[in-house]
Amino acid sequence: MNGTLPTIVADIAAEMADAPDRGTVADYIPPLACVSPSRFGMAVVEADGTTHVAGDGDMPFSIQSVSKVFGLTLALGMVGDALWKRVGREPSGSAFNSIVQLETEQGIPRNPFINAGAIVVSDLLLGRHEPGETIGEILRFVRGLAGDESIVIDNVVAQAEADTGYRNMALAQYMRAFGNIHHPVERTLGIYFHQCALAMSCRQLALAGRYLMHGGVNPETGRTIVSRQRARRINALMMTCGHYDGSGEFAFRVGLPGKSGVGGGILAVAPGIASIAVWSPGLNARGNSQLGTLALERLVQRTGWSVFDPE
Amino acid sequence: MNGTLPTIVADIAAEMADAPDRGTVADYIPPLACVSPSRFGMAVVEADGTTHVAGDGDMPFSIQSVSKVFGLTLALGMVGDALWKRVGREPSGSAFNSIVQLETEQGIPRNPFINAGAIVVSDLLLGRHEPGETIGEILRFVRGLAGDESIVIDNVVAQAEADTGYRNMALAQYMRAFGNIHHPVERTLGIYFHQCALAMSCRQLALAGRYLMHGGVNPETGRTIVSRQRARRINALMMTCGHYDGSGEFAFRVGLPGKSGVGGGILAVAPGIASIAVWSPGLNARGNSQLGTLALERLVQRTGWSVFDPE
Amino acid sequence: MNGTLPTIVADIAAEMADAPDRGTVADYIPPLACVSPSRFGMAVVEADGTTHVAGDGDMPFSIQSVSKVFGLTLALGMVGDALWKRVGREPSGSAFNSIVQLETEQGIPRNPFINAGAIVVSDLLLGRHEPGETIGEILRFVRGLAGDESIVIDNVVAQAEADTGYRNMALAQYMRAFGNIHHPVERTLGIYFHQCALAMSCRQLALAGRYLMHGGVNPETGRTIVSRQRARRINALMMTCGHYDGSGEFAFRVGLPGKSGVGGGILAVAPGIASIAVWSPGLNARGNSQLGTLALERLVQRTGWSVFDPE
Amino acid sequence: MNGTLPTIVADIAAEMADAPDRGTVADYIPPLACVSPSRFGMAVVEADGTTHVAGDGDMPFSIQSVSKVFGLTLALGMVGDALWKRVGREPSGSAFNSIVQLETEQGIPRNPFINAGAIVVSDLLLGRHEPGETIGEILRFVRGLAGDESIVIDNVVAQAEADTGYRNMALAQYMRAFGNIHHPVERTLGIYFHQCALAMSCRQLALAGRYLMHGGVNPETGRTIVSRQRARRINALMMTCGHYDGSGEFAFRVGLPGKSGVGGGILAVAPGIASIAVWSPGLNARGNSQLGTLALERLVQRTGWSVFDPE
Repeated sequence: MNGTLPTIVADIAAEMADAPDRGTVADYIPPLACVSPSRFGMAVVEADGTTHVAGDGDMPFSIQSVSKVFGLTLALGMVGDALWKRVGREPSGSAFNSIVQLETEQGIPRNPFINAGAIVVSDLLLGRHEPGETIGEILRFVRGLAGDESIVIDNVVAQAEADTGYRNMALAQYMRAFGNIHHPVERTLGIYFHQCALAMSCRQLALAGRYLMHGGVNPETGRTIVSRQRARRINALMMTCGHYDGSGEFAFRVGLPGKSGVGGGILAVAPGIASIAVWSPGLNARGNSQLGTLALERLVQRTGWSVFDPE
Repeated sequence: MNGTLPTIVADIAAEMADAPDRGTVADYIPPLACVSPSRFGMAVVEADGTTHVAGDGDMPFSIQSVSKVFGLTLALGMVGDALWKRVGREPSGSAFNSIVQLETEQGIPRNPFINAGAIVVSDLLLGRHEPGETIGEILRFVRGLAGDESIVIDNVVAQAEADTGYRNMALAQYMRAFGNIHHPVERTLGIYFHQCALAMSCRQLALAGRYLMHGGVNPETGRTIVSRQRARRINALMMTCGHYDGSGEFAFRVGLPGKSGVGGGILAVAPGIASIAVWSPGLNARGNSQLGTLALERLVQRTGWSVFDPE
Repeated sequence: MNGTLPTIVADIAAEMADAPDRGTVADYIPPLACVSPSRFGMAVVEADGTTHVAGDGDMPFSIQSVSKVFGLTLALGMVGDALWKRVGREPSGSAFNSIVQLETEQGIPRNPFINAGAIVVSDLLLGRHEPGETIGEILRFVRGLAGDESIVIDNVVAQAEADTGYRNMALAQYMRAFGNIHHPVERTLGIYFHQCALAMSCRQLALAGRYLMHGGVNPETGRTIVSRQRARRINALMMTCGHYDGSGEFAFRVGLPGKSGVGGGILAVAPGIASIAVWSPGLNARGNSQLGTLALERLVQRTGWSVFDPE
Repeated sequence: MNGTLPTIVADIAAEMADAPDRGTVADYIPPLACVSPSRFGMAVVEADGTTHVAGDGDMPFSIQSVSKVFGLTLALGMVGDALWKRVGREPSGSAFNSIVQLETEQGIPRNPFINAGAIVVSDLLLGRHEPGETIGEILRFVRGLAGDESIVIDNVVAQAEADTGYRNMALAQYMRAFGNIHHPVERTLGIYFHQCALAMSCRQLALAGRYLMHGGVNPETGRTIVSRQRARRINALMMTCGHYDGSGEFAFRVGLPGKSGVGGGILAVAPGIASIAVWSPGLNARGNSQLGTLALERLVQRTGWSVFDPE
């Protein structure tokens, strides 16, 4: 490691504060469009719990698709591997909201981290419950992972998505035509939009991700969230599918399992070593945080944490 | 680790010898169709050089697309990152020999491990040389990696591919139409078909892959084959793109960078720990070795070597 | 002409009554699935108004997509060529309910006779009106064309489509995401489903199609429904796009402008000569009436009415 | 008819001489790129043989894909309807040289008027002959149709295509991979490139097309070139597939069976009335002659010759 971890984290945050090319803030959900592109936050939780936070690392943001990791984890706990009958495990080779693949593959989305796949997961989470109950369960689950009861869902963001998310509605209706959505789409999408609207800081997000570095165990409580095998597999899916059609590039540059969201957040996991969250709202052409990716690339260069490095 | 490594390797080979569902031997290259599906070989080279070989691990087979790893490594050494102007770094989301993506993405193949991408790499390797010289250089390079001068190219296999490889010819001509193949396609494909026709045993293949576990250094000679960063990135590409449209599944089940070939071989890398080769000629529906994948899955379960596990 | 027209029509109806291979009745809209495949009807209205009806030619059936001709005609009268900013004029090269093309062509459907295109036409027809008013206007329009006030819309069929038409909902939502549907999709689809649920006999349908053989003029009333140029162009669209991905085959075998519906009806036009309707509920692999197409093929062979024949 | 035919033809030629927006001359075959966009020619042969020629109507040009009509006619005479086992009859919904459809439809091109389909027809024409013999036969056939022994093949154009036609080579190799090209691709493409390189004037082209207006009979010799049914069907294919992905637009605007070529020529047929050829080298966005299409549109408006008009 080049330098101590606190120094490395602080240095990267300082570099990102001055970075000229910050990407483009997503504008298709109105409340997200208002966030300043100057924001950058970072948090690193080490295996022993030591936590390093820099920049805007304590400011909540809309985690959006990062939440798909938590939704998948919760659903695997509920229905187990039966989930994989309704969702695939392969990179999509197309944009996050593409509908083309659903036609050729009969309504089975390629993986749980593209929108269509996460909507199926939401449909599974809904089960026989009322949407309000399921949304409450997701929130309790994430609060428990992070050990922080102050985490909330931003209902303004959820409502904005419900008002404008025609493309997600189309995906859901389309999968329903193939029998792969079991509830009325408004109810399923209610789960999906609220899950995406979780507001968390980098610190909260990195804490919530700890179970993925610890083989499925929440180190704070000692509780097993998922089996060791499932934790490993979720990490694998984050590596191959976590950044939409930029997943190969993220693996190439960063080399850690990671999941990005259109709000500019990324959760990354160095198994056995650290849980990491970065946030900067400007996105690159693939819809992933421009500076968040750069920050993780630099972190890995200085720490040697890539899973593809000899140690 | 559940048991000692020699025991684990021997046990897996024994299990594979009896496995009932062995997949389907590829028949589109006539000499490959003659190989018995009962074959299974395995070799593991540990970081300190200790080597474990089991089953048919010393029997040479046609490594086919596993050779794309060596071709890419050699080409990166010759032209550096300029290579990435002509080849992408994303999973393809389609079959190994698909031409669809080339039309929508203007002749730039998605990654160097699908056929189209490897053909571009062959075109780069050809450079200003005669095909015979380039083929000789590839052979010397692989012999050097494995430390074994007995490795040969099977010219019967190369000729059979040249006689029947219409689809690869179509891919090459198509990319030439977009200006992404610079030589007459027969010359470029001559490189490609000979590289694919490398005949190696599991032992030789695992030895040749050592530089990928050691950050780019061949431990036998101490020579740097590629920089540490490039070794890491090649591993990343193997993880996201090494098994065609089954790459997500391989990451999910095995969790190691790996590259498969239609001859039934797979090279897998546990960075810092081991270089592993398996071979069994029967393929699954995605064109990857059925028992080879299963053997690696069991190896990882018993050793904990997945890069997605805490240690 | 081989024989007199009354004989030809009667002979064809008799041949179709005995035809062994009758296709498959559509089952995705429950009320349609109940219709017996033994049905066959036919009606021919000559330029001078002489009408020949055979078989079940006076039995009403669900005209389904045949109604797209009338919807398009009405919409062209309301908004004129501005319609073509929102809908294309090319054959789709894919199935009637494909969503793929909408993604690559940014929400603009290929033509007004595939589902997506007809939904846009419904959105135009809705304009500033209430759905009930627009549905009433469509019904009045078709009654006027046929000169038959007894024509009705089958609300059971309309409701069944509304209950199960997830794929059409997906198409509408998807186009709304691109801004090409201007009303809430339920309202637009209300128009579409009711238009499709028009119940007409072959006689009524052939009468309604008279304006297309007469250059846009309803011969009964002398009123101009559309300009001569528009009538010609609607015929052209029926020729190139009227049978989904079987349009080329229909032109090849029949050689008349025609529009089919999933209820088994086809309206065909011999410009200057005749307006023809056939009905048989069994469909071929492309979703067009198996016997209806065969009946038209035989009619054209015996009459020489193909537009591609010298006279 | 608005005016006499000689006046109409002369007027249109005069209008086209001054037209400002002339499209873009194709540049991918070098010899074609040298033709001046100011050229415009037209020839109309009436049913009784009366011929009207205007502008550059006696200047030879490269007919390119217009020749696919003659190749198809000749092949149908040789192998009959067996041809349709290897080529479809549907519009493609994509560009003239697209390869995507071939992958999803297993090497069967959508119709004989896209490049892939015409290459299969060339493969059929080659049969057991030497390429030189087949090329000679095509030339004799076209000379016979036009009644003009002075028609030649431009070998410079044929050679230029052979030197640069990578995309056509890719199409041919790709279809060979599916078993739908039976000869070495160089031989099959030799036929294709020479057929495309036919140099003809509008007068010659319109004369050659007479059999399509006369139900398959060459009126000069009285010989049946193809059966009446086949002539009708070739016309149908020209209507639905003759202008690549602009076929719907051509039917909409012109309403005649027509086949265009990248050299700027179009052959159109008014069954029973006239055979028409136009030429202007500038192309529209779909690859069809900009002024040629406009000239035909005006001709049809003034003559009422559209097959979709009442008479």
